[in-house]
Amino acid sequence: MDLIESNLLALKQLEFDSYNQDFLLTWEKSRDEIEALLLTAEIFAEMHRLKKPFRLFDFGLAISIFRDNSTRTRFSFASAVNALGLGLAELDEVKSQIAHGETVRETATMIAFLAEAIGIRDDMFLGEGNRYMREVSAALREGFEAGVLHQHPAVINLQCDIDHPTQTAADLFHLKKHFGSLEALRGKKIAMTWAFSPSYGKPLSVPQGIIGLLTRFGMEVTLAHPPGYDLIPEVVELARENSQSSGGRFHQAESMEEAFAGADIVYPKSWAPYKVMEERTALLKQGNREGLKALEQTCLANNARFKNWECDEAKMKLTKGGSALYMHCLPADISGVSCERGEVAREVFEKYRLETYREAGCKPFVIAAMIAMARIPDLPTQLARMNA
Amino acid sequence: MDLIESNLLALKQLEFDSYNQDFLLTWEKSRDEIEALLLTAEIFAEMHRLKKPFRLFDFGLAISIFRDNSTRTRFSFASAVNALGLGLAELDEVKSQIAHGETVRETATMIAFLAEAIGIRDDMFLGEGNRYMREVSAALREGFEAGVLHQHPAVINLQCDIDHPTQTAADLFHLKKHFGSLEALRGKKIAMTWAFSPSYGKPLSVPQGIIGLLTRFGMEVTLAHPPGYDLIPEVVELARENSQSSGGRFHQAESMEEAFAGADIVYPKSWAPYKVMEERTALLKQGNREGLKALEQTCLANNARFKNWECDEAKMKLTKGGSALYMHCLPADISGVSCERGEVAREVFEKYRLETYREAGCKPFVIAAMIAMARIPDLPTQLARMNA
Amino acid sequence: MDLIESNLLALKQLEFDSYNQDFLLTWEKSRDEIEALLLTAEIFAEMHRLKKPFRLFDFGLAISIFRDNSTRTRFSFASAVNALGLGLAELDEVKSQIAHGETVRETATMIAFLAEAIGIRDDMFLGEGNRYMREVSAALREGFEAGVLHQHPAVINLQCDIDHPTQTAADLFHLKKHFGSLEALRGKKIAMTWAFSPSYGKPLSVPQGIIGLLTRFGMEVTLAHPPGYDLIPEVVELARENSQSSGGRFHQAESMEEAFAGADIVYPKSWAPYKVMEERTALLKQGNREGLKALEQTCLANNARFKNWECDEAKMKLTKGGSALYMHCLPADISGVSCERGEVAREVFEKYRLETYREAGCKPFVIAAMIAMARIPDLPTQLARMNA
Repeated sequence: MDLIESNLLALKQLEFDSYNQDFLLTWEKSRDEIEALLLTAEIFAEMHRLKKPFRLFDFGLAISIFRDNSTRTRFSFASAVNALGLGLAELDEVKSQIAHGETVRETATMIAFLAEAIGIRDDMFLGEGNRYMREVSAALREGFEAGVLHQHPAVINLQCDIDHPTQTAADLFHLKKHFGSLEALRGKKIAMTWAFSPSYGKPLSVPQGIIGLLTRFGMEVTLAHPPGYDLIPEVVELARENSQSSGGRFHQAESMEEAFAGADIVYPKSWAPYKVMEERTALLKQGNREGLKALEQTCLANNARFKNWECDEAKMKLTKGGSALYMHCLPADISGVSCERGEVAREVFEKYRLETYREAGCKPFVIAAMIAMARIPDLPTQLARMNA
Repeated sequence: MDLIESNLLALKQLEFDSYNQDFLLTWEKSRDEIEALLLTAEIFAEMHRLKKPFRLFDFGLAISIFRDNSTRTRFSFASAVNALGLGLAELDEVKSQIAHGETVRETATMIAFLAEAIGIRDDMFLGEGNRYMREVSAALREGFEAGVLHQHPAVINLQCDIDHPTQTAADLFHLKKHFGSLEALRGKKIAMTWAFSPSYGKPLSVPQGIIGLLTRFGMEVTLAHPPGYDLIPEVVELARENSQSSGGRFHQAESMEEAFAGADIVYPKSWAPYKVMEERTALLKQGNREGLKALEQTCLANNARFKNWECDEAKMKLTKGGSALYMHCLPADISGVSCERGEVAREVFEKYRLETYREAGCKPFVIAAMIAMARIPDLPTQLARMNA
Repeated sequence: MDLIESNLLALKQLEFDSYNQDFLLTWEKSRDEIEALLLTAEIFAEMHRLKKPFRLFDFGLAISIFRDNSTRTRFSFASAVNALGLGLAELDEVKSQIAHGETVRETATMIAFLAEAIGIRDDMFLGEGNRYMREVSAALREGFEAGVLHQHPAVINLQCDIDHPTQTAADLFHLKKHFGSLEALRGKKIAMTWAFSPSYGKPLSVPQGIIGLLTRFGMEVTLAHPPGYDLIPEVVELARENSQSSGGRFHQAESMEEAFAGADIVYPKSWAPYKVMEERTALLKQGNREGLKALEQTCLANNARFKNWECDEAKMKLTKGGSALYMHCLPADISGVSCERGEVAREVFEKYRLETYREAGCKPFVIAAMIAMARIPDLPTQLARMNA
């Protein structure tokens, strides 16, 4: 039995109803739904490898709204919707970052008459990004229920202030391939750690998304960061609860070394403390340029105290067999390459470079799976038909 | 007999030849052609509702040229061409707004080798927008006749200084659905009135397009605006003639109240006086920033004298049964929502909000119908085949 | 036998293997490959004329990266990929023009997971453009060989510092149609000459590409320019060698008049001396605005000494029968139209205007042929199948 057949079989065992549902946070999705997502993404990836089309739509737009720069996710989204048969349209918002209310409600409807999916990145403003997505979602639901829209476009979170589900699901897909199955992840140790970067203000969505998702699969998840670099407390609490339910473990460490010890997987990645992000959000809303400059200076000075939080060969030696899998959402700050001193040493990155590309290569298929699950009724049957 | 069948039957009764014709002004189109447009748009909308594709093209580009901002029309155009099977390409003109002559002629040809339709918005310069479209059109015709182009791309007016046919045809489609038929519009009273706005320089194309189109269907059309807020005289004269030919009525009122009295439909919408637009065009051409600032001040001060031209609940009570259909091309300036004081009171707008969304939802299908009629030979037969 | 049948027959006689190969310089391609390119482009053009689709792809992206402005090539690329069934995605590089190394390698892979072709324009920096394309190409090859990419996207040169193969192949296609066959070009005289322009810094890629390509077909190629307006010496040497191998002739003339004498074809077009382009590249890299301004002044003053290098009616009289074919890659600087005094007199341009449009009209089909040859295994069989 080949990969597609066995995935189709596995899909039939799962119970989920994703039709007409958005994808905003992985922890709003059942375990079965997450598994179905990976199985579907894997089917799409395999079909693509075999040059079999998976054009599930005859028409329809997929709209992207990027409120922050993006190359990787932009092209992953463009690739996914192209393969599904949808047309891509980008909404270029020159308006205020924090437009809310009437404008959001109306605009969402106006662009959606023939839309099947709306992908949104809004990750810069703590407390805003996910909320904006829900405003768009509510408008679309109202429009669909009132018959204004013939269909219910799915909102796909392409990174918000809380979670980055297309990234973390792609990471999980990568881990599943690497270790052979989701079951094989049980008991595996992953170190999600802060790392030094010469820039500031990096979003929290990746570390939060990683601890929020991987704790559901019985993994031993260690979160480590310097004092003060906290994540949103609610997500840390959620990770703790997840690990208890799944029979895994979640704990926090004080140093990269401690977290790396015996790890099967390491994910060293910079972020800004959530308290700083809160302060920054307030300053951005005020348009307070002086305040922002001062905050940046303070933060960079603070970062500089933790330059030793670099993933180098010495620290990699601490991991299981000295050969843990290195992960990164890219682009990484690579010491001596993209910056003088950064998140990862040149030699370590180069050793795992192609692996990180493979990790990134999961994303287009994950996005395609999210859209397909939300928009195609009885998707498993459709997939079986395409592969008959 | 379902809606599609009956529309196909009705289409066969009409005489029109839209093949290889642009869509620049509704009043250049015969009554039969307008009716065919609505029947076709309605077929497309119904097919979309039933999830039946109407992909009439196997290949080809649809190009949009937006010389003024747009979200609604941009996405309507993108949606329409996607559903028809065309690829969208946007021409981003960094060049002067009033480029003419050789450049227009050559550029039009260069982008059109595989194009089926070119949609243009050029509404800011009185005397320029429609003229520019005709220059593009002439170049394409020359190219087609000389064999430079294999096909004759249709120019679609996405709003000019004179008319806004995709909007007004969508409005007519909405009215047809609301009242049941075009025949049912005979004798219905519509108030096309100016309304107060805290901004200035809004185009004249919607009110002009509305009085130029609806007077052809035996409606009683009342135009009302404060002294000085005149439309282009030729269009007002055209509306008068239309109403005489169609057995309707056209007259002008001095106040919103007078126009609303007994109206079945109200369309309160701000615009700038055409004399101001003429002056503004001259200043823009000169690049006279001081002059433009001064003009804006004068105009805003003048607008402010007519703040009572707001569509509020009291004025709505004057309409037939107090429940006329409220229309707007969106976005409306809503008092207490998008501005302190604007075109329409919050309560009135909220009551009709979903209706205005439905009105807007007609536009993608109207645009698709315009392109299909201009580019598909014997369209009714093709539509019948797709629905067999 | 119709054109498509005879081209399919001719294609079978040729030996070439373009699958998984980029298109970066025409002189890296065998004579058979160039002939196959023209035969394929001609088949696509004829299919388009007959309204037969040549949608060879079911899915996949074609990505364009424009590091310099473009309208013609942009739309030719958009048209080509649409007709082939690919989705267009543009990479908007806000980053430095001369980004190299890690960033290029990673970005190239990140955008390419579902890409079939990447078209690049990078023509402003001498010594950089073609090199950048090869960096992208190397990254894609590495990704393909490592299994990171399921397919090997083709890099298509949409104009670099050395060559402009989509333009020159379109020019050759135009000449083939005009004179009836490639064989008919043998012994034909073409004058590739500099011409006066009121602007400065125009790339060298067209004249270099023309002498590098047409010397391979037994033509008599004359290059003429004022003293100092040299092309890259290596390309001039290459043209000389080509002409010896092909049984043609290549020589340099001192004046437009000398080059035009007895010519069958004239291609008068402005460019900047390569020494100036070298100096300009250095200044641009330094961000030296003062230096750039000074260089521009010197160059414009120097240009002005050669205002008589205009293609006017008197000079056209010197050509064979006074009726040589005039060619230009467009847009031309037309005296009295787009500038006071330019490359070509108004009367000459107007006489050949539609011919230059036909020349430009070859480009979409040439680009489609380049992509198809690089990405479709056994293309001749596929083409035969589509036309069976």
